[in-house]
Amino acid sequence: MRELLVELGERTYPIYIGEGLLNAAGDLFTQRGISAKSPLMIITDENVVAQGHLDKLQAVLIAAGFKVVTSVINPGESSKSLLVLEKLIGQALEEGLDRKSTIVALGGGVVGDLAGFVAASYMRGIKFIQVPTTILAHDSSVGGKVAVNHPMAKNIIGAFHQPELVLYDLETLQTLPKREVSAGLSEVVKHGLIWDEEFVSWCDENAERLTALDADALGYALFKGCSVKAAVVSKDERENDLRAILNLGHTIGHALEAVAGYGELLHGEAISIGMVGAARLGVKLGASEEVYTVTKRVLSRVGLPVKLPPHLDTDAIMEAMLHDKKFMEGTIVFIVPVEIGKVEINKSVSAALVREIVEQLKQEAV
Amino acid sequence: MRELLVELGERTYPIYIGEGLLNAAGDLFTQRGISAKSPLMIITDENVVAQGHLDKLQAVLIAAGFKVVTSVINPGESSKSLLVLEKLIGQALEEGLDRKSTIVALGGGVVGDLAGFVAASYMRGIKFIQVPTTILAHDSSVGGKVAVNHPMAKNIIGAFHQPELVLYDLETLQTLPKREVSAGLSEVVKHGLIWDEEFVSWCDENAERLTALDADALGYALFKGCSVKAAVVSKDERENDLRAILNLGHTIGHALEAVAGYGELLHGEAISIGMVGAARLGVKLGASEEVYTVTKRVLSRVGLPVKLPPHLDTDAIMEAMLHDKKFMEGTIVFIVPVEIGKVEINKSVSAALVREIVEQLKQEAV
Ligand SMILES: NC(=O)c1ccc[n+]([C@@H]2O[C@H](COP(=O)([O-])OP(=O)(O)OC[C@H]3O[C@@H](n4cnc5c(N)ncnc54)[C@H](O)[C@@H]3O)[C@@H](O)[C@H]2O)c1
Ligand SMILES: NC(=O)c1ccc[n+]([C@@H]2O[C@H](COP(=O)([O-])OP(=O)(O)OC[C@H]3O[C@@H](n4cnc5c(N)ncnc54)[C@H](O)[C@@H]3O)[C@@H](O)[C@H]2O)c1
Ligand SMILES: [Zn+2]
Ligand SMILES: [Zn+2]
Repeated sequence: MRELLVELGERTYPIYIGEGLLNAAGDLFTQRGISAKSPLMIITDENVVAQGHLDKLQAVLIAAGFKVVTSVINPGESSKSLLVLEKLIGQALEEGLDRKSTIVALGGGVVGDLAGFVAASYMRGIKFIQVPTTILAHDSSVGGKVAVNHPMAKNIIGAFHQPELVLYDLETLQTLPKREVSAGLSEVVKHGLIWDEEFVSWCDENAERLTALDADALGYALFKGCSVKAAVVSKDERENDLRAILNLGHTIGHALEAVAGYGELLHGEAISIGMVGAARLGVKLGASEEVYTVTKRVLSRVGLPVKLPPHLDTDAIMEAMLHDKKFMEGTIVFIVPVEIGKVEINKSVSAALVREIVEQLKQEAV
Repeated sequence: MRELLVELGERTYPIYIGEGLLNAAGDLFTQRGISAKSPLMIITDENVVAQGHLDKLQAVLIAAGFKVVTSVINPGESSKSLLVLEKLIGQALEEGLDRKSTIVALGGGVVGDLAGFVAASYMRGIKFIQVPTTILAHDSSVGGKVAVNHPMAKNIIGAFHQPELVLYDLETLQTLPKREVSAGLSEVVKHGLIWDEEFVSWCDENAERLTALDADALGYALFKGCSVKAAVVSKDERENDLRAILNLGHTIGHALEAVAGYGELLHGEAISIGMVGAARLGVKLGASEEVYTVTKRVLSRVGLPVKLPPHLDTDAIMEAMLHDKKFMEGTIVFIVPVEIGKVEINKSVSAALVREIVEQLKQEAV
């Protein structure tokens, strides 16, 4: 088992990563002071249930003496809504959850973000535990950002709410569809690209082991990914400055998700293309050509798209970017690589230059 | 102008109380670092608009160079919903509010709680200013509790989100309906009852000046009320222990509101009856008879009901209390006066005793 601390003063919490960790959930929860007197609610989705992960976690917690309530949502982004939030809070009320209760998110980033906002807002905030079951959720489970979507914008209604702990059982990842594996690795590679050149090389060399879900490789990669995220978040919990570097690839990526319609491109796929775009931008602004070639190669090797689907309308993509919340007081904030493992926050990238990059991404050789 | 600081470390903020303060809004906002570059959104309700208060504030802020967006909700508790929240967030997006924007609540507690939760959750939290226009809102505007209702329970979906400042213009209070004046004074008296015997005597003697909205008396009373609330909140921002004393009268009061149906009893009226009940309980548990007589007399003098409407069903009231969120791990938390100006948190009041009190409150002489 690997252990890692997210240092946030009195909100500091541990991340545990290892095989078969669900079996230790009872002990680890108790160790962190989770009350067995008040009902605990596991929120998960149908796919996770179908793979047997809920049954397992529930049985372990009941055996450890917890009062367990479960709530199963429909899989997918559309569950991150105020409507589903209202339903879950209704259920929490019916089941008698009180201020000492805990919400457990068992699933990917959708479940984590939604359940986290339930925990943040129910009675103005109760305890919260992340049990991520996707690779992408190594990202969403660290840092405390929780949210639901508004019909007009993603993740726009939310809070900062740190979990009590994160429990990462590598066994749950074995049931992930291949495409979700690659999409999750996108954020893993991102964490290397913004912070750690050596880890990018390691990903380059171990890409095959990662996509094959080799437990050793995966455990190491998730540990590294979580470490980078934790380091950044510790320095800037509320996204005042540094934390913005985590948005590498996301300015273009979010626009692609919006224009393609959620579903055609997974989040990790969209930001993969976005990171190639950011690398191109970096080279234009003076970085060595290698920044672009390495970025593109690593992402391809873990099974990700690097070319922007040419049928997506450039005007629509630009328009979507203008609505993105990362525009502040009219200035566009762009995360630009300066070398592998290092990025800068550039606040004055012109729309014209971004449009050029978008056009080039449509011609990218694969 | 009276000024008061709510001490909360880096979240410390000032409360300004005085006549004609709306005229100084521009300066005071600027002084607190409110950005004039990003749009600022005033949320208010139709009644407040009808009295001309929005026009005035808007004109002052525009003259001071702010970009002002306004949003007018229907008056009343039913606007504190996720549906209205979603609409307001949609409007904020349309109007281009960004992370440096500010939400201004111009109105009573309904507007304050709702607008505060918009500010707490929009982009995971933007700045927030309270401009209370009811007496009751002296209570809701201090302490950072913001929330909307769930069909099953009041104030159950929310956050702790402190304002940047509170601007209390006594002139806006002149347009309040008489019944709202008394209802607001209920929380003023409450603040005396839990903390400050001398202030209770002062209220007793100055009840008529208060109900007549004498500016001097009102300014003093609101300053005192806010001071008590601020002192309590400073010691216990997140309601772990001490803050519970602010719930004097609320255990029974909330149940009455729920059973009567919101509307028959205003919040302040319901907790007036609740405070008489709590005083009766205090006497039963050993406090001097005076606790009950003084409590009842002061509340009557400021125009509040002290008798529980006999047609309300006792079983229904008891049932409503059992669903109240102040029940923790099965134990009922009751705030009980021990003398005037001093209460204790009693965690073991039996349901049978509470039922007895409820029956007695129906017989209360008026
Ligand atoms: N809060 C943050 O900081 C943050 C960061 C990045 C992404 N996110 C959010 O995360 C979400 C994306 O996360 P995601 O990719 O994990 O999405 P997801 O939760 O939708 O999971 C992807 C798919 O895998 C399924 N699944 C989950 N675990 C499984 C398992 N063990 N076996 C088989 N199938 C499984 C899910 O049902 C779903 O169909 C987005 O909503 C995004 O906004 C949040
Ligand atoms: N957050 C907290 O700590 C806290 C504390 C106490 C109460 N509250 C909440 O506050 C709410 C009650 O507050 P309230 O009594 O101020 O309610 P309110 O906002 O509904 O105002 C009462 C009535 O007065 C009208 N009004 C407001 N200002 C006016 C003015 N200047 N002239 C004429 N009419 C005016 C309103 O339109 C409304 O009809 C409840 O929702 C309660 O839950 C919150
Ligand atoms: Zn991402
Ligand atoms: Zn109250």
